[in-house]
Amino acid sequence: MNSTDKKPSWKHRLHEIIYEADTKEGKLFDVILLVAIIASILLVMLESIESFDAKYHTYLNISEWIITILFSVEYILRVVAINKPFKYIFSFYGIIDFLSTIPKYLSLVIIGSHHFAALRALRLLRVFRILKLARYVGASNKLLLALKASKAKISVFLFFVVILCIILGTIMYMVEGAENGFTSIPRSVYWAIVTLTTVGFGDIAPQTPFGQLIASIIMILGYGIIAIPTGIVSSEMTKNNDNNLHTNTQACPNCGKENHKDGAEFCYNCGSKLN
Amino acid sequence: MNSTDKKPSWKHRLHEIIYEADTKEGKLFDVILLVAIIASILLVMLESIESFDAKYHTYLNISEWIITILFSVEYILRVVAINKPFKYIFSFYGIIDFLSTIPKYLSLVIIGSHHFAALRALRLLRVFRILKLARYVGASNKLLLALKASKAKISVFLFFVVILCIILGTIMYMVEGAENGFTSIPRSVYWAIVTLTTVGFGDIAPQTPFGQLIASIIMILGYGIIAIPTGIVSSEMTKNNDNNLHTNTQACPNCGKENHKDGAEFCYNCGSKLN
Amino acid sequence: MNSTDKKPSWKHRLHEIIYEADTKEGKLFDVILLVAIIASILLVMLESIESFDAKYHTYLNISEWIITILFSVEYILRVVAINKPFKYIFSFYGIIDFLSTIPKYLSLVIIGSHHFAALRALRLLRVFRILKLARYVGASNKLLLALKASKAKISVFLFFVVILCIILGTIMYMVEGAENGFTSIPRSVYWAIVTLTTVGFGDIAPQTPFGQLIASIIMILGYGIIAIPTGIVSSEMTKNNDNNLHTNTQACPNCGKENHKDGAEFCYNCGSKLN
Amino acid sequence: MNSTDKKPSWKHRLHEIIYEADTKEGKLFDVILLVAIIASILLVMLESIESFDAKYHTYLNISEWIITILFSVEYILRVVAINKPFKYIFSFYGIIDFLSTIPKYLSLVIIGSHHFAALRALRLLRVFRILKLARYVGASNKLLLALKASKAKISVFLFFVVILCIILGTIMYMVEGAENGFTSIPRSVYWAIVTLTTVGFGDIAPQTPFGQLIASIIMILGYGIIAIPTGIVSSEMTKNNDNNLHTNTQACPNCGKENHKDGAEFCYNCGSKLN
Repeated sequence: MNSTDKKPSWKHRLHEIIYEADTKEGKLFDVILLVAIIASILLVMLESIESFDAKYHTYLNISEWIITILFSVEYILRVVAINKPFKYIFSFYGIIDFLSTIPKYLSLVIIGSHHFAALRALRLLRVFRILKLARYVGASNKLLLALKASKAKISVFLFFVVILCIILGTIMYMVEGAENGFTSIPRSVYWAIVTLTTVGFGDIAPQTPFGQLIASIIMILGYGIIAIPTGIVSSEMTKNNDNNLHTNTQACPNCGKENHKDGAEFCYNCGSKLN
Repeated sequence: MNSTDKKPSWKHRLHEIIYEADTKEGKLFDVILLVAIIASILLVMLESIESFDAKYHTYLNISEWIITILFSVEYILRVVAINKPFKYIFSFYGIIDFLSTIPKYLSLVIIGSHHFAALRALRLLRVFRILKLARYVGASNKLLLALKASKAKISVFLFFVVILCIILGTIMYMVEGAENGFTSIPRSVYWAIVTLTTVGFGDIAPQTPFGQLIASIIMILGYGIIAIPTGIVSSEMTKNNDNNLHTNTQACPNCGKENHKDGAEFCYNCGSKLN
Repeated sequence: MNSTDKKPSWKHRLHEIIYEADTKEGKLFDVILLVAIIASILLVMLESIESFDAKYHTYLNISEWIITILFSVEYILRVVAINKPFKYIFSFYGIIDFLSTIPKYLSLVIIGSHHFAALRALRLLRVFRILKLARYVGASNKLLLALKASKAKISVFLFFVVILCIILGTIMYMVEGAENGFTSIPRSVYWAIVTLTTVGFGDIAPQTPFGQLIASIIMILGYGIIAIPTGIVSSEMTKNNDNNLHTNTQACPNCGKENHKDGAEFCYNCGSKLN
Repeated sequence: MNSTDKKPSWKHRLHEIIYEADTKEGKLFDVILLVAIIASILLVMLESIESFDAKYHTYLNISEWIITILFSVEYILRVVAINKPFKYIFSFYGIIDFLSTIPKYLSLVIIGSHHFAALRALRLLRVFRILKLARYVGASNKLLLALKASKAKISVFLFFVVILCIILGTIMYMVEGAENGFTSIPRSVYWAIVTLTTVGFGDIAPQTPFGQLIASIIMILGYGIIAIPTGIVSSEMTKNNDNNLHTNTQACPNCGKENHKDGAEFCYNCGSKLN
């Protein structure tokens, strides 16, 4: 990269280690970061278990500070290593890194603010970035391709589901009423979503026969329309099979035929050599 | 359109704005209507939350009247702008528009009737009509095509599910009986639907070992037969792929037939050479 | 049919009406039977609702007797109209018809036996037979074809699910124990089925952290492996598309090419006429 | 097999009976083993039902000892019949066989250890091995092939689901807090898994409006992303179809390559004419 030529060599090297993963040190940094993120999340989980926190509060607190300082150092290094620091600071990951590091410091000033350390879980998203380098990239790329292609259709579907739930929830509010747990329309819509998606918590359940009839219709509907997103993604992934996998994009130099099998060396139509 | 030529020009223009969306004003009208519908639904939702309604009753009431008058004006304009008013009045959307506007007026005479304002949620269905004009039309059209093609199969499936639930519910009523919550056959059928669709509220649950055995069979059945609607839609959507994939876009130079197989050299209809 | 020639003409005619549906009277009989079945099931449902039965017991009882006598007449006619009565009597539908008619008579002798009238719900299965004559036959035939083809695979899958549930249920019994509702292995297996199929009643739920961890694994497993039956049926139905729908079984008389498009009149390969 | 030639003939024969299934005796052994496994599991299930165990404790205990001795004999025979006993002892099935036999003996010394007899359920896994010999092998092989091919994609998906649940669970912990049942982050993550997989026990359910909003998003998400594993497996199984469908069974007369495209006239590998 020509634009990085102007950086001092130590800055260039730091950038390579932190932001890239082509060198040995870069890979090592990623692995250490991954371990640190998982450790920090386990820590915040253990802390949230009251009985555990009561017993080992001091140890947890010390570990918290070690992790926080490590992340602070990483944050500073990231800011220093990049040519345009604000690009990182206001990037998606930059904001997450900041938000997951600052609560511990704030807890010195504002009591209770360390609860926001749980935001650190968002750091797990970085895992996807780091794993981009790993062997799973092929598999997830094909997945993402199919998902991207079916984004519009799935949006329409989810939009339809939400509207359906608002209408059905409103009807249930009118049918069942507050005395059966459907205390407000938003709550009834929440119930409709719980039912249509076949989750079915059971904290709210229809009591009147007519309400149960409508609930039955919602459930059968939900059972049926789950076929739609499934059909969309299936068809998209099958299309990918047909297109990219079994045929290539070569055209025969002699007869112009396309759709040759992968690895074909001769045209299946005229027999002339493909190149 | 020739039939609208006889309308006075202001009526013609009104029709264009309200019923069509090709002009700038028509699009603006649709957007305002969309916003008004969403606002009116948020309003009716907020009203249904008792604690909120107690605090802001006056504000909510005033907003309600503003929305109601707006919708009344829209309704009158729609009746005026069309050549055959009864065609609109007794159309699906005409009835919804009427039912969602009238409750507020009735509430002046009959106490409690404003509860039916919740019917306004049905207005959300108009959203689909308005969005027909938007960029999502392609995506949803393909969806609708696949759904229409699989309508008969899905009807058979849903019909089968309902009959299965009636039979299974009746058996469970005989096995578990009223003392375990299966107080009547309709209630048992409701439970069977809750279970087969994998919703599982848990408000009714089998208590006897034999009842739990039958419940297990119902659940595994429900887990298995969800594959059927899914398979139907998937295959229908994949077929759509295939139509575009395995046939080419050539038209026969002689008879004009399209949809030739990939690699076809002669028209399958008239036998003349394709080029 | 030659074998029915020997029957007296009235018997022959009765057979046509009751067992077949090609004549006007045969179709009418089927429709009346369908209505009677649905009425009898509604009746038994209403009877099962205690409050309703208390009020209208006499009316329900009279209607019950009318339906029972009607079904008795139908049963006798079916036995009379067929050449080999025992073939009907011991057939699947013959047994159901008998079992759904007899309880009312038994209730005169044995108190409580009329509860078995609920078995009448099994009569609904006859609906499928009657509807075979209707326009849905095409749709359901294709469905049945795909299901039959995937029977072996789905059996293996369901067998695998049952074994998995036995193993997982046993493990949960050991982890959670009787004090958390997992009172016996069969009950734990029942819970595992409830969880794996994503029904989730919530009448039994793990309380220990380790139990919840295993439950999480079961749920994610259940969420994942639902893809298997779905994939099986999808692939089977897609195969049907490719095979039967778009191509026929003709071979070109000139070049022998197969897989012609439905409705093709000329070979796509050599252009000679197909016949 | 040459390597087994050195074994004495009785050992060779024993190996054939126990480890193989080509001979009549081998098949009989497998059937007996299958019956014994199922009987032993039914036994451990009945034992776990307290009321049943109280009544028939003596009979159950005797049956237990018979089964245990049978399995002990089988274990010893397996060790004796194989040339490299340690290969069996430390194999997957060897460890299961040992763990499911030893608890009964230990119960003589350590009270309560017979509870681990439930580990015997793991023996059911051997069923798959035995059935490999049966007619279902074709069906399950195709299934396994498709599952193996989609392993990487499904791993990525499940990994994504777990991370999503950790993030969503943490957010719910911060939103709902301990007073609404979300007492710790691990418990909240457990709830997120219960919800996303559409199981929905209902033992923990959001109470605040904001919590219910997030729950709604999780549920719709879960309802939508179930399409992903389904799409993966569907596409994989359809691909299998395609391999058989769109390619023919011709082998090139020159180079012997198979899997030619339908309609191919020349070998895609060596260019010689296909006939």
